[in-house]
Amino acid sequence: MESANKKFDVLVIGGGPGGYVAAIRCAQLGLSTACIEGWLNESGKPALGGTCLNVGCIPSKALLDSSHHFSFIRHEAAEHGINAPGASMDVNRLIARKSKIVQTLTTGIAGLLRKNNVEWLQGFGRLLADRQVEVTPVMQDAGPAYTVSAAHVIIATGSVPARIPPAPVDNELIVDSTGALAFTDVPRRLGIIGAGVIGLELGSVWNRLGAKVVVLEALTDFLPSADGQIAAEAEKILRKQGLDIKLGAKVTGTATNNREVTVNFDSPEGKLQLQVDKLIVAVGRRPNTARLGAAESGLRLDELGFVDVDEDCRTNLPGVYAIGDVVRGPMLAHKASEEGVAVAERIAGKHGHMNYANIPWVIYTWPEIAWAGRTEQELKSAGIEYRVGAFPFAASGRAKAMGESGGLVKILSDRGTDRILGVHILGPNASELIAEAVLAMEFEGSAEDIALTIHAHPTLSEAMHEAALGVDRRSQHI
Amino acid sequence: MESANKKFDVLVIGGGPGGYVAAIRCAQLGLSTACIEGWLNESGKPALGGTCLNVGCIPSKALLDSSHHFSFIRHEAAEHGINAPGASMDVNRLIARKSKIVQTLTTGIAGLLRKNNVEWLQGFGRLLADRQVEVTPVMQDAGPAYTVSAAHVIIATGSVPARIPPAPVDNELIVDSTGALAFTDVPRRLGIIGAGVIGLELGSVWNRLGAKVVVLEALTDFLPSADGQIAAEAEKILRKQGLDIKLGAKVTGTATNNREVTVNFDSPEGKLQLQVDKLIVAVGRRPNTARLGAAESGLRLDELGFVDVDEDCRTNLPGVYAIGDVVRGPMLAHKASEEGVAVAERIAGKHGHMNYANIPWVIYTWPEIAWAGRTEQELKSAGIEYRVGAFPFAASGRAKAMGESGGLVKILSDRGTDRILGVHILGPNASELIAEAVLAMEFEGSAEDIALTIHAHPTLSEAMHEAALGVDRRSQHI
Repeated sequence: MESANKKFDVLVIGGGPGGYVAAIRCAQLGLSTACIEGWLNESGKPALGGTCLNVGCIPSKALLDSSHHFSFIRHEAAEHGINAPGASMDVNRLIARKSKIVQTLTTGIAGLLRKNNVEWLQGFGRLLADRQVEVTPVMQDAGPAYTVSAAHVIIATGSVPARIPPAPVDNELIVDSTGALAFTDVPRRLGIIGAGVIGLELGSVWNRLGAKVVVLEALTDFLPSADGQIAAEAEKILRKQGLDIKLGAKVTGTATNNREVTVNFDSPEGKLQLQVDKLIVAVGRRPNTARLGAAESGLRLDELGFVDVDEDCRTNLPGVYAIGDVVRGPMLAHKASEEGVAVAERIAGKHGHMNYANIPWVIYTWPEIAWAGRTEQELKSAGIEYRVGAFPFAASGRAKAMGESGGLVKILSDRGTDRILGVHILGPNASELIAEAVLAMEFEGSAEDIALTIHAHPTLSEAMHEAALGVDRRSQHI
Repeated sequence: MESANKKFDVLVIGGGPGGYVAAIRCAQLGLSTACIEGWLNESGKPALGGTCLNVGCIPSKALLDSSHHFSFIRHEAAEHGINAPGASMDVNRLIARKSKIVQTLTTGIAGLLRKNNVEWLQGFGRLLADRQVEVTPVMQDAGPAYTVSAAHVIIATGSVPARIPPAPVDNELIVDSTGALAFTDVPRRLGIIGAGVIGLELGSVWNRLGAKVVVLEALTDFLPSADGQIAAEAEKILRKQGLDIKLGAKVTGTATNNREVTVNFDSPEGKLQLQVDKLIVAVGRRPNTARLGAAESGLRLDELGFVDVDEDCRTNLPGVYAIGDVVRGPMLAHKASEEGVAVAERIAGKHGHMNYANIPWVIYTWPEIAWAGRTEQELKSAGIEYRVGAFPFAASGRAKAMGESGGLVKILSDRGTDRILGVHILGPNASELIAEAVLAMEFEGSAEDIALTIHAHPTLSEAMHEAALGVDRRSQHI
């Protein structure tokens, strides 16, 4: 092995949005860096990008976009004067487009590593003592395992779909989020366990394509981490779109024959049963540490299996950091990337900046849901005095011109100082609108700061402006 | 007349986005306020909202949205796996949808005035001496002209399409922007005089619907007020979409028969002729002061016909202000609205805030064009040392998933202080992305401020983040 016994400044275990970004930043800072990643793509070729690019954010957005267009054509185009009778979806082509996008982007990451002189070790990394890492090549013909070492190690092994005993994934009828991105036709009846981000996004995709979708959520609250008003409004809209969301529905068992899945669940209405053609298990994700070698290296995990880190992402082992889904905090690609950059800066002796308070959340239903900062229920239970400004998209000229009038922007600010404490959006392009709010919060800005800033007309961002004006009871358009 | 001889705290002449917003803010501040507006809509009924809502921003965006969807279905849907053969556009329904949106929104403004206790005087206002205003009712049965007066007058009469002698508008074959929003079918060959915002937006609409569009622009530079790099890229994309843009083309005359228009123009290639089925004159707009009574009242106009104001929108007459298109500065609805709010605050004895340096510009072509602050060519000619960070949407995962990879985000920052001097976007949803940039500039933020702010993945706003990183040569994804 060319790389055997090689010593680097930094070894990054994992090539997802945490790991590859960390590796690139290390290299930019002049550190000799390798990134260990053993992912195999659909064609059996090594691929960078991890869950996010291969079976997460990117492919789901590709399918969400395509299915959104299809839904528009079937349900809304006529309103615009567009006749498109008999529009149909070729699922194979839909999936092929998604795969092509994934391939382009993951190939692009490989190019970025090369450009930045990051060495990609195509295999699985297992942490040994003293920042040595054993690499097991993923390709059969790539020789035996070998050992490399580094002055610093960054663990970025990410997460894997969580499983639950009553619904074992068979990758035929019962699938996880990965399988749900590769259906070869539209299931007539689709069950989803879990009404979290992944369940709602995948449910939206297949619902738009014609599946009758039932979502079973064990919790009795819908989207409890979102602002309560936004969650309630979103639930209403998603139900109207056809998602049959059953709250307080605890799956107790499943049975499959070669055609369908029977799902048994306890619900507020008693013990119920559901027959579906496919069942997606989307009950969250757990840290991916199975092959990491925590025991061998003495790496400390916490009680939930996450790599235990301090707020600067330092593990208990000197010179070993961990970032992204494999550590505490939200499992979000952009959180992983920012931690990666911050750790790279720290390794290079600079100051790493990471503000956990201002991490945006996005759910790519339509309308989209996005937020940053605290929810109204969090402020209430913390006893913080706040003011609320809200503006519905129904009163936005741009939204009206788009035919998108569901949802609202809601800004929560401190009653005394007017500092923005939380911004919550349900609406078209909420994923983009949240950027302004996050920036405002990074500046520790007030609602008045947004209110005094000119927003282009006609845009959806005017709803942010109006919500900010609303905090001071001076909205113009409601 | 109920309102005759009535005295208000504030009289606003004009009910567009400058006037009605000023009136609402005045009323919110406790001032007795009337808004004088004599616009008649398509049905011959009085309507608020002025050019923007009736024949400008809103109806154009409605048509841009509908035509964009149609273009997607014809040219891009197949790539997503969507079969929609024989999709066609029913132009009457397209126009009816637009008219309905306009009606809903203008009716909404009337409701807002009522709610805020602003009296709407349905007629044309002519300024007399001493803040008296003669109102000529617009409806035949509404009685004779009457006079009202106020402690303060705000002139917000807006602008009208400019005309040029060689192309007289006949509202049949030769139309202005208003006429171009109401074609009853798609012209086979469409000529447009003027490659400004209006010409490009209307050209895009009808081009997408199947017209063969030729745009004649007298200037030899394309979009000279935009950043040069953005303009060059936009020109390339719009030409590819089918807009035949002829620069340096000066129209010297037109002739119409009952079927077509012959346009004669001088061009770099010599004297040329063009035959079209419809010709749109979109050569800019001029201040609307014809009925305003400048002579009678002693109101000073400037040499171009704008109401002459200081930087606080004060005219030469005590207690008389003017805002929006009828005064200096960009003819943009949001500029008018903000001036309206600022003047209302001043009248109420408060501080009116208006930052002319940070007004966003948007052109709703697709991809959209949006910017704020200074262009690279402006910085160069001012001798300001700057750094550039740019990021192409071709390298954005979100843009790739959307199939939208044209364009870029470009950030210009001061070489010494890193303060953001200009942000220029060509790309999908540029109109929304610019909001973050404007806020950053209002905070007098640096490119590093944006670079250190977490942007949600996968979003288009990451391109802003990457461009900010690029200023310091530390982009992750290029």
